[in-house]
Amino acid sequence: MTDPQTALLDALAPAPPSGQGPRLYVADTDLAEGASVALPAPQAHYLRSVMRRGPGDTVVLFNGRDGEWQAAIETLSKTGATVLCRACLRPQPEGEANGPWLLFAPLKRGPVDLLAEKATELGAARLQPVVTRFTTAARVNATRLRSLTIEAAEQCRRLSVPDMADPMPLARLGDGWPADRTLFVLAERGEAPPAAAAFAAHAGAPAALLVGPEGGFADSELDGLRHLPFVTFVRLGPRVLRAETAAIAGLTLWQALAGDWR
Amino acid sequence: MTDPQTALLDALAPAPPSGQGPRLYVADTDLAEGASVALPAPQAHYLRSVMRRGPGDTVVLFNGRDGEWQAAIETLSKTGATVLCRACLRPQPEGEANGPWLLFAPLKRGPVDLLAEKATELGAARLQPVVTRFTTAARVNATRLRSLTIEAAEQCRRLSVPDMADPMPLARLGDGWPADRTLFVLAERGEAPPAAAAFAAHAGAPAALLVGPEGGFADSELDGLRHLPFVTFVRLGPRVLRAETAAIAGLTLWQALAGDWR
Repeated sequence: MTDPQTALLDALAPAPPSGQGPRLYVADTDLAEGASVALPAPQAHYLRSVMRRGPGDTVVLFNGRDGEWQAAIETLSKTGATVLCRACLRPQPEGEANGPWLLFAPLKRGPVDLLAEKATELGAARLQPVVTRFTTAARVNATRLRSLTIEAAEQCRRLSVPDMADPMPLARLGDGWPADRTLFVLAERGEAPPAAAAFAAHAGAPAALLVGPEGGFADSELDGLRHLPFVTFVRLGPRVLRAETAAIAGLTLWQALAGDWR
Repeated sequence: MTDPQTALLDALAPAPPSGQGPRLYVADTDLAEGASVALPAPQAHYLRSVMRRGPGDTVVLFNGRDGEWQAAIETLSKTGATVLCRACLRPQPEGEANGPWLLFAPLKRGPVDLLAEKATELGAARLQPVVTRFTTAARVNATRLRSLTIEAAEQCRRLSVPDMADPMPLARLGDGWPADRTLFVLAERGEAPPAAAAFAAHAGAPAALLVGPEGGFADSELDGLRHLPFVTFVRLGPRVLRAETAAIAGLTLWQALAGDWR
């Protein structure tokens, strides 16, 4: 895997200019006026060597709970930095925590990285790998995907990072599933109704989208899904979409017709 | 750039199994019952060495005009192949030629490759690079993008390949623009109405989507766009999407609410 720090730097270097300074996710730190926040070496390196910032310059912090904060760099060295929270720029948006879940069969590295990055931009609240019979990728590198979701959240001005759940077998999907959360299965083909209408009919309700593996679901898996009371099959147009395209298209449609793009 | 043949093989190798055989785009050949079609060396190599096919095996052909044809391999060698058209599987779908146009500022290689591939899957009829003031990529490799759109069309069972237009300056956009084709500018921020409602109001009409560069449009460019009679600004949710994400999301919404996913 790519070193998380290198990945962070690669991804952040071409960031569009922000009037408020570089954005940093500080997971385990409470943010409040006057709070002093310690940043670890990778974030300090990013501020110093990539963004060329120094003491007195402003940065923007978020932790997924306390909204978006403007902060000033107090000390900055190779080994770390301290920044002082000054003012809350935005409260924590409610919509993000209520975002759709994305369930997906593990994919090869390129497509799954894309899926994680775009799902973050599109406001997915949770990423849940699901192992199916025809899943081609051997495993999910949760550490790399977690790092990609953090970078994507920092870039797209999101104030939270999607939960990255541990992989689970498809057959266990019914165990403990929240009864009020509809699971939309993005069907590759067949007689399922168009996703747009189905999504619009569930506007504002909890939802999850399930994207199958490149090889499709096994017939027995489709039968199993059909028998789950919270499952609805939907269709994404006449062409055969790659798994990651279906995930991106599904999240887009959900957000536009039922989620926080409305 | 990647050798087109290598790119073709890389992209096609993991294709999902098709009951009808490998799909090949044959641009310059008319397809009809009994027609004999000559395939060049790269397609012959793909059939022989990647897909392990031989004489008598079936392939599927399309050329963007005559629908989808089942054909049988007659001869197959390193230097070429001949296949015989047997039966029309599907007529040419009208929706594809009427698909949305995608206008985009040239991007770096990774994002622009992604954009070309996904725009094909999502049914864009034309890809038009547009050079803006803050465009970061120096040029567009039309040959590579063309090759990517062909591979994507073959994979997604589309029966056409998007037109790949030559780059043009943004300031020339008004010259000869078809008056009945609405150009939706996917605005990064601001007071534009949500794309979903705007698209639904134009269902079935000719449309184009314009995605700006990573650095955004210059103020003078936005002013220029606002004065064009065929331009409508729309917004894609509360987060800042990368250019390629905006393109994919915009095409998805258009197809679902106004295009051939309905």
